[in-house]
Amino acid sequence: MVPHLVTALNGPINELEQRILESMPAIERWFRLEWMEHTPSFYCSVDLRNAGFKLAPVDTNLYPGGWNNLRPDMLPLAVQAAMAAIEKICPEAKNLLLVPDHHTTSPAYLSNLARLARIFNLAGLNVRLGSLSNDIKAPTTLDLPDGETITLEPLIRTKHRLGLKDFDPCTILLNNDLSSGVPGILEELHEQYLLPPLHAGWSTRRKSNHARAYEEVAKRFAKMLGMDHWLINPAHARCTDIHFADGKGMSELQAQVDAVLTKTRRKYKEYGIHEKPFAVIKPDNGTNGLGLMTVRDAKDLESLSPQALERLAASKDGHPVSQVLVQEGVLTNERVQDAVAEPVVYMMDRYVVGGFYRVHTDRRTDESLSAPGASFVPLAFDQSAQLPQPGAKAGASVPNRFYMYGVIGRLAMLAASYELEATDPDADISE
Amino acid sequence: MVPHLVTALNGPINELEQRILESMPAIERWFRLEWMEHTPSFYCSVDLRNAGFKLAPVDTNLYPGGWNNLRPDMLPLAVQAAMAAIEKICPEAKNLLLVPDHHTTSPAYLSNLARLARIFNLAGLNVRLGSLSNDIKAPTTLDLPDGETITLEPLIRTKHRLGLKDFDPCTILLNNDLSSGVPGILEELHEQYLLPPLHAGWSTRRKSNHARAYEEVAKRFAKMLGMDHWLINPAHARCTDIHFADGKGMSELQAQVDAVLTKTRRKYKEYGIHEKPFAVIKPDNGTNGLGLMTVRDAKDLESLSPQALERLAASKDGHPVSQVLVQEGVLTNERVQDAVAEPVVYMMDRYVVGGFYRVHTDRRTDESLSAPGASFVPLAFDQSAQLPQPGAKAGASVPNRFYMYGVIGRLAMLAASYELEATDPDADISE
Repeated sequence: MVPHLVTALNGPINELEQRILESMPAIERWFRLEWMEHTPSFYCSVDLRNAGFKLAPVDTNLYPGGWNNLRPDMLPLAVQAAMAAIEKICPEAKNLLLVPDHHTTSPAYLSNLARLARIFNLAGLNVRLGSLSNDIKAPTTLDLPDGETITLEPLIRTKHRLGLKDFDPCTILLNNDLSSGVPGILEELHEQYLLPPLHAGWSTRRKSNHARAYEEVAKRFAKMLGMDHWLINPAHARCTDIHFADGKGMSELQAQVDAVLTKTRRKYKEYGIHEKPFAVIKPDNGTNGLGLMTVRDAKDLESLSPQALERLAASKDGHPVSQVLVQEGVLTNERVQDAVAEPVVYMMDRYVVGGFYRVHTDRRTDESLSAPGASFVPLAFDQSAQLPQPGAKAGASVPNRFYMYGVIGRLAMLAASYELEATDPDADISE
Repeated sequence: MVPHLVTALNGPINELEQRILESMPAIERWFRLEWMEHTPSFYCSVDLRNAGFKLAPVDTNLYPGGWNNLRPDMLPLAVQAAMAAIEKICPEAKNLLLVPDHHTTSPAYLSNLARLARIFNLAGLNVRLGSLSNDIKAPTTLDLPDGETITLEPLIRTKHRLGLKDFDPCTILLNNDLSSGVPGILEELHEQYLLPPLHAGWSTRRKSNHARAYEEVAKRFAKMLGMDHWLINPAHARCTDIHFADGKGMSELQAQVDAVLTKTRRKYKEYGIHEKPFAVIKPDNGTNGLGLMTVRDAKDLESLSPQALERLAASKDGHPVSQVLVQEGVLTNERVQDAVAEPVVYMMDRYVVGGFYRVHTDRRTDESLSAPGASFVPLAFDQSAQLPQPGAKAGASVPNRFYMYGVIGRLAMLAASYELEATDPDADISE
């Protein structure tokens, strides 16, 4: 199903793969113990980039779409994981209300919703969809590309509960990243399980918090394996109080970009990597590719055109970006035929339940593949991430590569747990 | 992969399937709530028989072999379920000791052990095999049909722990049904997790206890679905103090067989089933087909030959059978080409992780298919039992049939939990 991947894997990544495989029981035990202390996100997808010499997560999505891109024969894994998740959160659950992103009505996104609804239905729940959109005033049935349909219904809020007409859910699952803020209709719902919690939305979440949490996780993981955490952890820095329109904070940004590039250059030298380091500037909140910028030299920031500055300041919700994450750029060296490919790992509860490759035909290896506009082909992982083959030659085995991706994906998911604990507005500060 | 099944499904079973599908969320919720109160067996396989008008479990195996008969692409489901099981029982687990049946060294059984070891290794444990056999005095490597090998090692018992040389497990998993009694080496192990518990072995277990527990489960399940529990529950009775050699207890046995046949006849009449009822006499403990007898008329028991009586009294461990279960016979009306087929459902923790058909070419529809001697072909279920298709026509959908099998298999597993709770020697009687 999946075309042959032409990859340029060399030294460090093969050592990483080998070390991960050798340490499999220790890794699985480590995750088990971590999940005793930290609650996994209900569901999660993680974008990875495999540079051949380095493998790192570049985006951790706590409201994952794209479930329709997984292979249908992976569905039982997702259903089983959903059963485990529900059992822990709300064993008496009957009704699940799924709240979609109301800005997106593309056929692909609707197929994603249908797939999610099917997973939770097969896990034993009555699932209905409630829309935040003002346009949905009555149950509205939409056609899907495969001939199926889904029905969006208007939400009904009472003082303490959210539901639909004749549908009182005990659990509300958001598939909406709240990047335009938390709607009042979702606030103060103390009688129902609202998943993920509101502070996982982009109105609260910051990429720099996640990067910091991931760094902590990556360091502890790397220590256990006796390896350099840089192999799985991109260097990063945060810049606040930037005002792109009048150039305020630009020199600080330039200094941070320079610091990240210098650190990366040193590591490239240490590992004998003959590539030119680059950094990516991302808005600290928000999920889409608007405002992303690739920088190869800090000096480039001195001579940005007004258009470039405007792009950097632009965000989904219209507020100008004033805080950014500067992240070491990670090349993606995986190819499907001649197109650049980037793996995306899907998790439900603590389990890796599948993944796919995001394949772009008109993007370079150092560009974001999740930016809009590029032509994008999803290629479902053709195997489970749970079947490593310890005997296989490093770098030559698809099951082993998928296992490694599943491990790094889970590290990012664990980092999200750390991150949400640290930013939980209801947490007891005295702890 | 799986040949087309020529089945003679008619009325009641299609209604059952339809009712089960319609009630899927209620059923899954019911199981979730049951598993909050009752601990599932660590692993379990259940033999089912589908008569077309009735579907019932006929054997619940708490030390399942045959894992090698499942499709390899179902492995991730088993791995994920094993992860869930370990997480609950012993999250800090590192080492798992697998103790096989030491009477069986068939290539198929060894492949089963290799598969089990692989599942738990992929779930993150170091797995080694310790044999109860006196013949294993040093690590012994055995060849498997597929070119792999497995190594059996001698068990080492200290005062409080069981292990191998340089291997101290926290969990011991038995794949040995203890039908020849509990070896002393397995007793008094209070520091390690011994799974399943010793009283799940056939030295303690009784089929009649299981049948009683299953009846309770089936009645509650049937009540929830508003259906007759007989459709999933074979009539049964227990006879004790039989001495086949001198005919002691035979008239009581005859009376019980007559009662079971009369009950079955009444039900056949109620449902318009034009089949001749039969009963099966089974030794109340033990797992193998020795001593099984099919009876169509209670009077047949009056004129048994000495050879037939000897067969009834025979058991695996050599002690004459003195206690039997009389069970309503359930026809198996599934066919692969012209051979009789019987589904076997596999579970790990609370999850259905696969199954296969036991196919016999020289057995009749009213005979046991697990008896030795008959030619036996395993046919792996070609799909997960977790993907029912609610819209499909009753009786016409393989996914729906597998889902129904998974539900009935789980009912039998739940009955085993009830059974083991009732027979737990360490249970607090005051409760």
